[in-house]
Amino acid sequence: MELSLVPIDNIPMVEPGDDLLTLILAGLDSMGAALADGDVLVLAQKIVSKAENRYVNLNDIVPSEAAIKLGLEVDKDPRKVQVILDESNEVVRKRPGVLIVEHRLGFVAANAGIDQSNIHQAGIDGDDLCLLLPLDPDASAAALRQAILDRLGLQVAVIINDSIGRAWRMGTVGLAIGVAGMTALEDYIGGEDIYGRELLVTQVAAADELAAGASLVMGQTTEKAPVVLVRGYQAKVPAGPEGVQPLLRPKAMDMFR
Amino acid sequence: MELSLVPIDNIPMVEPGDDLLTLILAGLDSMGAALADGDVLVLAQKIVSKAENRYVNLNDIVPSEAAIKLGLEVDKDPRKVQVILDESNEVVRKRPGVLIVEHRLGFVAANAGIDQSNIHQAGIDGDDLCLLLPLDPDASAAALRQAILDRLGLQVAVIINDSIGRAWRMGTVGLAIGVAGMTALEDYIGGEDIYGRELLVTQVAAADELAAGASLVMGQTTEKAPVVLVRGYQAKVPAGPEGVQPLLRPKAMDMFR
Repeated sequence: MELSLVPIDNIPMVEPGDDLLTLILAGLDSMGAALADGDVLVLAQKIVSKAENRYVNLNDIVPSEAAIKLGLEVDKDPRKVQVILDESNEVVRKRPGVLIVEHRLGFVAANAGIDQSNIHQAGIDGDDLCLLLPLDPDASAAALRQAILDRLGLQVAVIINDSIGRAWRMGTVGLAIGVAGMTALEDYIGGEDIYGRELLVTQVAAADELAAGASLVMGQTTEKAPVVLVRGYQAKVPAGPEGVQPLLRPKAMDMFR
Repeated sequence: MELSLVPIDNIPMVEPGDDLLTLILAGLDSMGAALADGDVLVLAQKIVSKAENRYVNLNDIVPSEAAIKLGLEVDKDPRKVQVILDESNEVVRKRPGVLIVEHRLGFVAANAGIDQSNIHQAGIDGDDLCLLLPLDPDASAAALRQAILDRLGLQVAVIINDSIGRAWRMGTVGLAIGVAGMTALEDYIGGEDIYGRELLVTQVAAADELAAGASLVMGQTTEKAPVVLVRGYQAKVPAGPEGVQPLLRPKAMDMFR
């Protein structure tokens, strides 16, 4: 399986209400490229959030007493703490400047994945502007996949990725926060190795591995290539709309929170 | 930056003492391909360990009292527990069937990365055979990089990857355990976003992202493609032999062990 990861690097700044598929197809067209059956599109979370107008103006937020107290404790703007808490199931760890939470979507991330870089809205000071994750990234991915099927008649898998920090290791890696049209977690349970021994490592986080590779191609300091076209991946297509859920370790099975 | 990830899929079963570069070059040659300046080679840990004869015959291991006690506690062969402890700085978590350790190389991994699948040695029962990680994966990567420079006059970066489990999420992903000829952790501290705001997410685990993408191309159930040629990555070359160390979060800075 040879993979190519091609940045779609001429997508204009995304504004609320933009149709991402139109922008992606125009970008591909200007590159002389086109989608094909079996492709995977990896979209940066940020452009999905922008298209879905997930902006929050912190001037509209009235922090609760709990948010004010926590903000003092971790030295963060209490309005931003309130937004993080609103987006989270629980705080997993805290230290000055950072809250590690279980996001309402189920995954663990610093500051609930809320972003203040590379965003802009007229009339709002940058320090007061936040961008939340999409409301339902699996649904966003599924809608894009369906639109491609409807408009072009093509089966394309969609991953929405974000750069997320990790336990134990430095630096962020791209991870899948929304998946449609492919099996996110490949399961080899019951499989055998080449000598007929039962496999012990049996589950591969395929969507995360694709999200990571695509993240590298997107780059980090600019928003030049917020979509990557992955060609050559033989996606396993799930029977149902599984989404990203199989990648999330249930808390009761997690030794590290 | 367009990336291609090409599996080198005709490498024979690696035996102790094999010269990996010879096998890789023969594999590329049979594909009608060749290395070029700026390429990255990602090697599966397993073939490096095999070439370096990192096999252990559990019949040669006499478990200590501590290993016997721990083996009973987590329901593992005490000889294997002894090998895990010998390869580890400390046990981070334990539960039946699994020991999460800080490997002597500094990273956190289940069972010290010791593998019993897809390995074979004449005269040893499969249940008694283990394969340890390379003694010094950074050195192994650096030696291969140097050999390529010496024999072909080409600057090629080398990553040794392994499939490793994670906190919070299900499934393994490929991670870098040895790196040579590229900056493993890209640092954007002090950088600015497109609106001139200081970047907050500033460190990207580039070698891990490459290791993850390559892992997907290698596949998991067979050893058919233990090397992946990555072309198109504009590797940042470190001033010194940094290796994988920048990717390892110091224990004192880690909230999750």
